[in-house]
Amino acid sequence: MSLKLHNFFRSSTSTRLRAALNLKGLEYDYLAYALRKGETRTPEYLTKNPQGLVPSLELEDGTTLIQSLAIIEWLEETHPEPALLPADPLGRARVRGLACMIACEIHPLNNLRVLFRLRDQFGADEAAQKDWFTHWVATTFDALEEALQDARTGRYCHGDTPGLADLCLYAQVWNNRRFDIPVADWPTIARIFAELDALPAFRDASPPNQPDAA
Amino acid sequence: MSLKLHNFFRSSTSTRLRAALNLKGLEYDYLAYALRKGETRTPEYLTKNPQGLVPSLELEDGTTLIQSLAIIEWLEETHPEPALLPADPLGRARVRGLACMIACEIHPLNNLRVLFRLRDQFGADEAAQKDWFTHWVATTFDALEEALQDARTGRYCHGDTPGLADLCLYAQVWNNRRFDIPVADWPTIARIFAELDALPAFRDASPPNQPDAA
Repeated sequence: MSLKLHNFFRSSTSTRLRAALNLKGLEYDYLAYALRKGETRTPEYLTKNPQGLVPSLELEDGTTLIQSLAIIEWLEETHPEPALLPADPLGRARVRGLACMIACEIHPLNNLRVLFRLRDQFGADEAAQKDWFTHWVATTFDALEEALQDARTGRYCHGDTPGLADLCLYAQVWNNRRFDIPVADWPTIARIFAELDALPAFRDASPPNQPDAA
Repeated sequence: MSLKLHNFFRSSTSTRLRAALNLKGLEYDYLAYALRKGETRTPEYLTKNPQGLVPSLELEDGTTLIQSLAIIEWLEETHPEPALLPADPLGRARVRGLACMIACEIHPLNNLRVLFRLRDQFGADEAAQKDWFTHWVATTFDALEEALQDARTGRYCHGDTPGLADLCLYAQVWNNRRFDIPVADWPTIARIFAELDALPAFRDASPPNQPDAA
């Protein structure tokens, strides 16, 4: 199977998906889009992804999948091993819930386009953008740290196998560095991040290790 | 199975989940939390949901599930009929992608707590909040309208059976009324909303039909 990954090195949703592809052992062509230059807004890319966002995963037949969580679920269904979700429904609900805490409550608020909107609508300078960004990270990381105080947490977010929640956690901690937010404030998250960062599948997916890294 | 739904009539993530429970034919106890009064921030509720958000679904054994998308996936796995996702992986990816367009790109930006933050950090008044809210709805609804111009769209977002994407679409259109955003600007979304609103499972889940509706 030939896969094309439309993405951007610093995009945290792209980082999630790269790590998922790596964990599944799938190779892909890396197509880079410079977000600040509007490269995802071209008519050609918009036919693949009407939102003009990254990542998109283009399959061999030209079908393009959008939205990182939806793409990762597709990977899980079509390439079940190694599994990114536990086998039991309650465990799956926990892992998806932890993933959504990040994917639905932090990342959407701290996107580049959101920071641009804060600048354009409210005149938010870099310091105000940092306050905003940090506020949403802290709000949800405080709750995530609490949610991880659970016997089901293991070496990673759920047991001793990296999965969907870990993909989101890893990418978010990288994203936090944009505003120098130290992960040490959340010791369990920090511990899990370090465990993940020792795995080649994650490390190879990290922003500085991409071909378009500045 | 005895289910307790911790929710709020106007919360759009709660509306999604109510409609999903109704489609699955599952009864639940309705527990209302007035968000503006901080009723989700009590120590007792925070033990169930460390984010202090609604909805949460509490199972008979006291296990509490969080995050609407994760809960709906759990419902789908434990109560497969009627299905909220198509059987084929590509169809499932499309439906989850459409759902995430709303769940990850509109709703998180337009939450009550986000509007409060805009007010507190940037002094955003009602008009500025409306500009913000409308901007994110329009940005993604424009793309969603485009994504629905697809042969796989039927009576509903994907074929002729209501599913996960429809749950999100229906709840978002209701949410848009908070700022009087007319759905008619997006004819396919408007058509699908009208189809859904004719179904008792959706209509009964709508904000004005809840016991805590103002």
